[in-house]
Amino acid sequence: MNSKERYELLFSNINQYNSGEKGITRIAYSDEEQTCTHAFMRMCKLENLEIRMDACGNVIARREGKRGDLPPVVMGSHLDTVYQGGKYDGVVGVTAALEIVRRLNEKEIITDHPIEIISFACEESSRFGVSTVGSKAMAGILNKEKYRYLTDRDGITMEKAFALCALDFDSVEEASRNQEEFKAFFEIHIEQGPVLINNQKKIGIVTGIAAPVRLIIKINGKASHSGTTPMNMRRDALLGASEIALELEKAAIQEKKCGTVATVGVMNIYSGAMNVVPGEVELKVDIRSISSESRKRVVDHLNQVISQIEMSRQLDIQSTEISSEEPVLLEPHVVDTLIKLSEEKALPYEVMQSGAGHDAMNMAKLCPTGLIFIPSVDGLSHHPNEYTDMDDIILGIDLLEEVILHYAGM
Amino acid sequence: MNSKERYELLFSNINQYNSGEKGITRIAYSDEEQTCTHAFMRMCKLENLEIRMDACGNVIARREGKRGDLPPVVMGSHLDTVYQGGKYDGVVGVTAALEIVRRLNEKEIITDHPIEIISFACEESSRFGVSTVGSKAMAGILNKEKYRYLTDRDGITMEKAFALCALDFDSVEEASRNQEEFKAFFEIHIEQGPVLINNQKKIGIVTGIAAPVRLIIKINGKASHSGTTPMNMRRDALLGASEIALELEKAAIQEKKCGTVATVGVMNIYSGAMNVVPGEVELKVDIRSISSESRKRVVDHLNQVISQIEMSRQLDIQSTEISSEEPVLLEPHVVDTLIKLSEEKALPYEVMQSGAGHDAMNMAKLCPTGLIFIPSVDGLSHHPNEYTDMDDIILGIDLLEEVILHYAGM
Repeated sequence: MNSKERYELLFSNINQYNSGEKGITRIAYSDEEQTCTHAFMRMCKLENLEIRMDACGNVIARREGKRGDLPPVVMGSHLDTVYQGGKYDGVVGVTAALEIVRRLNEKEIITDHPIEIISFACEESSRFGVSTVGSKAMAGILNKEKYRYLTDRDGITMEKAFALCALDFDSVEEASRNQEEFKAFFEIHIEQGPVLINNQKKIGIVTGIAAPVRLIIKINGKASHSGTTPMNMRRDALLGASEIALELEKAAIQEKKCGTVATVGVMNIYSGAMNVVPGEVELKVDIRSISSESRKRVVDHLNQVISQIEMSRQLDIQSTEISSEEPVLLEPHVVDTLIKLSEEKALPYEVMQSGAGHDAMNMAKLCPTGLIFIPSVDGLSHHPNEYTDMDDIILGIDLLEEVILHYAGM
Repeated sequence: MNSKERYELLFSNINQYNSGEKGITRIAYSDEEQTCTHAFMRMCKLENLEIRMDACGNVIARREGKRGDLPPVVMGSHLDTVYQGGKYDGVVGVTAALEIVRRLNEKEIITDHPIEIISFACEESSRFGVSTVGSKAMAGILNKEKYRYLTDRDGITMEKAFALCALDFDSVEEASRNQEEFKAFFEIHIEQGPVLINNQKKIGIVTGIAAPVRLIIKINGKASHSGTTPMNMRRDALLGASEIALELEKAAIQEKKCGTVATVGVMNIYSGAMNVVPGEVELKVDIRSISSESRKRVVDHLNQVISQIEMSRQLDIQSTEISSEEPVLLEPHVVDTLIKLSEEKALPYEVMQSGAGHDAMNMAKLCPTGLIFIPSVDGLSHHPNEYTDMDDIILGIDLLEEVILHYAGM
């Protein structure tokens, strides 16, 4: 059995654990996810790794190096999924790490630094509305008292979900680790976007993880009769909202070099009827960039446009920021190393940003961190039809192996 | 008691009939509306009018003229309201007609032509989803077999509602009348729009009643992740919808001289979420004009814009016409007479179109018809806060009296 066949078997074994009627549903701290996680631990044990589960439910599997005093080079991702998700999101990163250990065992390579595999707990926000819980706990940035009472759709709190896994939520801080405990961290993940597929690249080398500013914009005009109100006597909130949406797009396009994106995902019209000029509209806006400055320029343009539209259309517009997270920039020397290794292996790569959050974003607070993307067919993710060609996964694993050996030394 | 005091008392008497917890609710063929209608019939009888209710529930009250062989000059409107409506819509036209008869009686004027007051049944669409039922029946254009089984929100059919009023739906065609039975018809109605108030005019002289073309536009793009999809790889249905809404506005503004209006009243996003680029949007569009040509130019522009947006944004857009009614133009000699009389009385008037439907629009199929608007404060209608100054109503009644005498002769 060659590496690819071995990997395919591992990948399909992991995706047996599933409660969903459609696609894959392996929700954090659920029976399916725990069974899957424990099966993965047994697989690691069979590779002679030292395994443990931390206080947050993260699995840590360690392969000793030549020098026990050196910090480990770490790789990992997550095994939990969204409801009705796909087979690739998260799973690829965890299984790739195990395949690399198997390759090293096969080749009897002992690295200078120890190597660790981490399967992070509860990366997806599907169950409790908060994401990357395991890596937040490890980085010591988990808001314990806020998270304790978050509930899932069945009313079960996070604390209770921990208890059902024989985890003690009170001890969750014990999962945190220090910067000295890490040499570097690497995650391989499907892109969940269309860039690599559209640009016919096999590898995405991530320079930073964009973070969203989120706004709710409330537009108040005047509801009136669609037949009896002349065009010049209208205060149409929907037309104001339309102008805002189009101007937001323009502003994001102008920030193309920073990879900034902006989206109106929700437009609610109160109370919409065919024969009523809309009097009230609510927009929900998401603006993301790895550059806080670029993001700010988009927000500034938006505010300027809002003032103009308030005047020109006699509308009253309130914009409220509901969240603002900081973008995470990854270490340039890690990016440079990944570029160099990709070129040596003649892998077609794209230097890009991540528009979605990943465990790597929290691990970057602990150590130099690399994030490698592989193509997502149709840019699709969090969907039963999520798909990445097996050969593309193998190319990603090859690069991950190279960079692990580079940092772990041998 | 002068004419104004007498009219105020009549107006407030009629608005005693009300089932609503807010504003006025006097739904067609309801107990409240029937009690109101029968009270009105008694009031007409006290003025020595000959009264009858036709097979559709229209009340016809006749004042004989000098010559019984001449057709009557007719005036009227309706007493039913929407749910939680106001005091003015419809009521003004019916009560104004009775006040004019009282004035003639007081002055002992006998006109050459007979005079009729009509209180039309079921003008509002609130109960059965269809409007101007009584005047449609009178004009012989009621779709009997379609209307018979229409139900209200309690599941009561129109046929059953008729029966509860001791009306036989099977006989509804008996309500139809011939062109020879009318000399002319006049209706006074609140504007239900802001034009007279904004332009500080007291009288609106209506040249035609606009009719809507209604469209449903379905826009299909591609739902994708708001963080991972670069701006140039999006197929955002909401941005396409926004362009359509703004272009529709532009097209209507270009048709200003025809008074054409166009509205996107509904924009549904499937399935809107803050972190998803919208993949599917549905628009509901209402375009009205008294000029079919002008309306067609707007629709043509819209279709052209849709083709362009399909190309530029890689969207698939389907536009479906769900209804198209014909505008009604009122007789120029009636409009000219109303202008002349307004000028003689030094009433500040506006020659305008009606963006909403009225019984006058069906009566125009039977005889020369005039529609007189009086100001609606804030352009408000179908709302408890509907308001018209009593002095403005009296000015309208004065003009209506003049034009009735003009056509009835004396």
